[in-house]
Amino acid sequence: MRFFSDNAAAAHPAVIDAIAASNRLDTAYDGDEWSRRLDQAFSSLFETEVKALWVTTGTAANCLALATLCPSYGSVLCHRDAHIENDEAGAPALFTGGAKLTLLEGEGAKLQPGAVEISCARVRKDVHQVQPHALSITNATEYGLSYRAGEVAALGESAKRLGLGFHMDGARFANAVAFTNQSPADLTWRAGVDALSFGFVKNGGLAAEALIFFRPELAEQATVLRKRSGHLLSKGRSLAAQLLAMLDGNIWLQNGRRANAAARELADAAPTRLVHPVEANEVFLRVSADEAASLRAQGFDFYDWGVGEMRLVTSWDSDPAAVTRLATAISAL
Amino acid sequence: MRFFSDNAAAAHPAVIDAIAASNRLDTAYDGDEWSRRLDQAFSSLFETEVKALWVTTGTAANCLALATLCPSYGSVLCHRDAHIENDEAGAPALFTGGAKLTLLEGEGAKLQPGAVEISCARVRKDVHQVQPHALSITNATEYGLSYRAGEVAALGESAKRLGLGFHMDGARFANAVAFTNQSPADLTWRAGVDALSFGFVKNGGLAAEALIFFRPELAEQATVLRKRSGHLLSKGRSLAAQLLAMLDGNIWLQNGRRANAAARELADAAPTRLVHPVEANEVFLRVSADEAASLRAQGFDFYDWGVGEMRLVTSWDSDPAAVTRLATAISAL
Amino acid sequence: MRFFSDNAAAAHPAVIDAIAASNRLDTAYDGDEWSRRLDQAFSSLFETEVKALWVTTGTAANCLALATLCPSYGSVLCHRDAHIENDEAGAPALFTGGAKLTLLEGEGAKLQPGAVEISCARVRKDVHQVQPHALSITNATEYGLSYRAGEVAALGESAKRLGLGFHMDGARFANAVAFTNQSPADLTWRAGVDALSFGFVKNGGLAAEALIFFRPELAEQATVLRKRSGHLLSKGRSLAAQLLAMLDGNIWLQNGRRANAAARELADAAPTRLVHPVEANEVFLRVSADEAASLRAQGFDFYDWGVGEMRLVTSWDSDPAAVTRLATAISAL
Amino acid sequence: MRFFSDNAAAAHPAVIDAIAASNRLDTAYDGDEWSRRLDQAFSSLFETEVKALWVTTGTAANCLALATLCPSYGSVLCHRDAHIENDEAGAPALFTGGAKLTLLEGEGAKLQPGAVEISCARVRKDVHQVQPHALSITNATEYGLSYRAGEVAALGESAKRLGLGFHMDGARFANAVAFTNQSPADLTWRAGVDALSFGFVKNGGLAAEALIFFRPELAEQATVLRKRSGHLLSKGRSLAAQLLAMLDGNIWLQNGRRANAAARELADAAPTRLVHPVEANEVFLRVSADEAASLRAQGFDFYDWGVGEMRLVTSWDSDPAAVTRLATAISAL
Repeated sequence: MRFFSDNAAAAHPAVIDAIAASNRLDTAYDGDEWSRRLDQAFSSLFETEVKALWVTTGTAANCLALATLCPSYGSVLCHRDAHIENDEAGAPALFTGGAKLTLLEGEGAKLQPGAVEISCARVRKDVHQVQPHALSITNATEYGLSYRAGEVAALGESAKRLGLGFHMDGARFANAVAFTNQSPADLTWRAGVDALSFGFVKNGGLAAEALIFFRPELAEQATVLRKRSGHLLSKGRSLAAQLLAMLDGNIWLQNGRRANAAARELADAAPTRLVHPVEANEVFLRVSADEAASLRAQGFDFYDWGVGEMRLVTSWDSDPAAVTRLATAISAL
Repeated sequence: MRFFSDNAAAAHPAVIDAIAASNRLDTAYDGDEWSRRLDQAFSSLFETEVKALWVTTGTAANCLALATLCPSYGSVLCHRDAHIENDEAGAPALFTGGAKLTLLEGEGAKLQPGAVEISCARVRKDVHQVQPHALSITNATEYGLSYRAGEVAALGESAKRLGLGFHMDGARFANAVAFTNQSPADLTWRAGVDALSFGFVKNGGLAAEALIFFRPELAEQATVLRKRSGHLLSKGRSLAAQLLAMLDGNIWLQNGRRANAAARELADAAPTRLVHPVEANEVFLRVSADEAASLRAQGFDFYDWGVGEMRLVTSWDSDPAAVTRLATAISAL
Repeated sequence: MRFFSDNAAAAHPAVIDAIAASNRLDTAYDGDEWSRRLDQAFSSLFETEVKALWVTTGTAANCLALATLCPSYGSVLCHRDAHIENDEAGAPALFTGGAKLTLLEGEGAKLQPGAVEISCARVRKDVHQVQPHALSITNATEYGLSYRAGEVAALGESAKRLGLGFHMDGARFANAVAFTNQSPADLTWRAGVDALSFGFVKNGGLAAEALIFFRPELAEQATVLRKRSGHLLSKGRSLAAQLLAMLDGNIWLQNGRRANAAARELADAAPTRLVHPVEANEVFLRVSADEAASLRAQGFDFYDWGVGEMRLVTSWDSDPAAVTRLATAISAL
Repeated sequence: MRFFSDNAAAAHPAVIDAIAASNRLDTAYDGDEWSRRLDQAFSSLFETEVKALWVTTGTAANCLALATLCPSYGSVLCHRDAHIENDEAGAPALFTGGAKLTLLEGEGAKLQPGAVEISCARVRKDVHQVQPHALSITNATEYGLSYRAGEVAALGESAKRLGLGFHMDGARFANAVAFTNQSPADLTWRAGVDALSFGFVKNGGLAAEALIFFRPELAEQATVLRKRSGHLLSKGRSLAAQLLAMLDGNIWLQNGRRANAAARELADAAPTRLVHPVEANEVFLRVSADEAASLRAQGFDFYDWGVGEMRLVTSWDSDPAAVTRLATAISAL
């Protein structure tokens, strides 16, 4: 019973079906009928005109976004525990041509406007120091916290005042929407977000993420760089079809809710052990080495998180019986 | 009836089936059971120990290979009409950190050892000039010519003598193997090739190419750069499964033969119009504007190739009836 | 008696004096009184408001200029024999983040508008091909030809129509001004040039070149990149002082005239041997191996230029007696 | 009376004389007689065979060194307050092709082996995280502390064990040698240092720093990159001559001692106000805003350092009378 990560889960059957259904000759790259429907489909979801590009990975989505918002000689402010800092092998530097990531602190991998303001205030406005050009947050965060629309908006106001582009890494955006019950629009462009990496792969997609630009003019450079970084697949229809399938009938949101519910069940089994509030599909618990070993002996797989902590990640297809069994096992520790 | 390009064709049904069959929880990235079988499967095909990495595009495969063979301050020798020069949006420069492409001439986009030797001899061995570090050829070439094993070996000897890494862009490698009837081994590592971009997408794959290293130690840096460039998909099993499906029962080779046969049929319909010998799945014909218009009026789609020429590309799933109709129409011009 | 190159010549005594005279405590970098006088001094020379940055090498000047005119994903059109292509170790790619140099042909390393137009017309306007963003010419050219103001203006019009930034590598700009007797303004911004690498080192400077922006807004990014590439010297006053010394009393122009006159004398000694017209301080002559050996035996040093040619370069401090002796020796061949 | 920075000071007269004396025709770039003497001169000083390259700035020296020790996909460990992090405009990323700087803590900008070991231990050995490849320390540090040979050696042992290249930013190396009274060899290669940016510009040079490689094989790539980054001056003899003049008669060390003595005098005037021990030519003092204003009113110029602190920097040519006057004024606060 695996609680390692959501990105190893199976894809939703509708996604596989969509791939099969789109498997016929059409214009290559993003000229096919599925790709051409993306802008409209996401504009409808976001209640404003957006540009939507498919890519195969969250790393690509994040880095294409950052490269449109930050020049090679600038810096991107992000949390010290951000995925772009820790888990993308330095890809932001490759895509931007060497931009710096400036690391900020914040409880639960969440940034506060104050931290952003202080960081920018420390930078001398001269050619010796790298000037901040963009802000990137992750929603839900790497520790499973969800920003509320108001929190994003407060950061958006700081970004605007400081002249920073504003990117949201939404690898688990569905989980944040499901948790906050706030609209995709309120959580993004209405709060000042310029570009969103809208994750599907952790949430039932197979190999397609959506890069959403709320300022459509930004999409042009990203489209060039998508090709230049080798991310323009010739049969892009299979990616677009995945995204459309996930939007159809709100599968993306249902899946997010399902994963959140599983995490909730685990959290409720051990309220006193929680390291962070559980606001998405990740549960961090304080456990002793013996306790962790005991859970493993019962067939549960998960990552240790430093000393004395464990991380559990649920997904859209977590087996409800396994979740309940794990909840029971945790309660019994 | 489309004869634009092979990369817009449908994927082979076995590929779609393999994607569906591999759609279950497994270790993320390339730790799954399908990905772990790749080295062995390709080693068997190539009759030597190789390292095989899946990637989603030929551009990524080519550029990861070049980045392992050429430092940022070096140059890669290639044909003026090479895909890496003309159709990859400068991706080689992004992946290598700025390496130069040195453009050589050669009939039908084919390079000769003499051209390589002369180009290298012209470079002063000082710090002012960019020094050549790698050679890249395309087989089959952009004009549909296939290198024979002996031709590759002659280039391989030059490369070795000149200290150049040797890369083969095999976007249409299947077509070259099918045409020459020479073994994958003879066409590559036995002829001195260090790295091969083994194309599947133009030949029945959906979104998976194989990057093959014949010097396994080269794979390590490429593996890092695959992640760093955003090309490490979390559900890599779907890519590995595609490649394995294509190798199973030699689908890749059968597909290559089928596409070549279609091109042959078209070529035989107009032997006096051929711009280049037809040795793969591309046919370049001399036609007047009126003739091209007449073919289009009959429902055939294709690219004009400069003034007075047209390009026809066949694929594994070209409709035999459509091919015969086009052959007849060309004969009748 | 050395006729190898002008960049090995001694600096003019006024330059050394200026370095010594500026050797006192002042604000670091470019905040000193000499650096602050540069804009005005060059604006006066060019009869328009310019921004002038000191740098130590022509490579740095050229590449900073190109990086302001061309993004990483674009291309710069230049002559196949341009210094930026052949003698800068790929520096343009480093500074631009990987921009491509597109090589054009042209007699005597001189570009014609037609070649520029044809090259741009060949590029498909899609994301697969690198789009041209800038044009760079060298004046005087690498073969010692000087563009007239009208020729520059014709290129400038093409550049404007095609949306290209326009850079002039003026490593030997002084020689071109001296030969054409046209004003610095007419040869540059009035002809559409956006940025000029104004060379002093080959013409009596020690270690200071001027990078001139005729669109002052371009200077800002170049100023950042000057620092980012390690070219912001802390005692910049010594560079600014060199440039001011060269402008004072028109030493730069007198030196250019002197070098040109020496080249003229050599050219007139062998009018039938000239490979190119002599319009600056370089003389390319057809000579047999025996003839070249004979000149060397008489104590003259120079470069062979391929087979059957020699290159002579004069400089501001070429010894008139040595020049006359060489002219006589050439006549006597 | 300026106590802003040492890099704005005048150059030593011997340096200006050397520039004038080397002002004659010689082979360009680094083929001249002065440049060819550098390896020997520095090998003698360091009691081992070294390769020595001149460059014009400390940023260039640091970044060329880092680029030889760390690939684009690696990271360099350094102190949070290191010059390479704070004052080089992101140049390390430009020169390395995007390497990351991993920031460590340490009193007085000094690193301890423990911090290095812990940082490396935290990095997972997989392709998702940027792997550490090099360690860079500054000696004397940005806060004027000098590493003793034993401290460097302890870091050198950690670096070796962890597979890290070891760079020392010696912008104030002379001050560290002067303070510790330990040999250049003991402070560098005998302690495991691979490359040293040996600063002269802050210590009496005009525009020449020395980049010293203790593993001579590293110099080759740096030499290529020096050209590629526009740092190969054609009249390099003027740089080499500066360095040789500073080595002659130990001017570099005398100047370091002189600057240190001036700092000592200031420190002794206010032992209870010292923020850091004074072990080089920088003095950080706790002062109130009123006290700082009072000093400024008396004609002393310096930087505030955050709230409640001031920074004083002495140099080889600090006027002894001014130093004494400032010491007196501080005592009197």
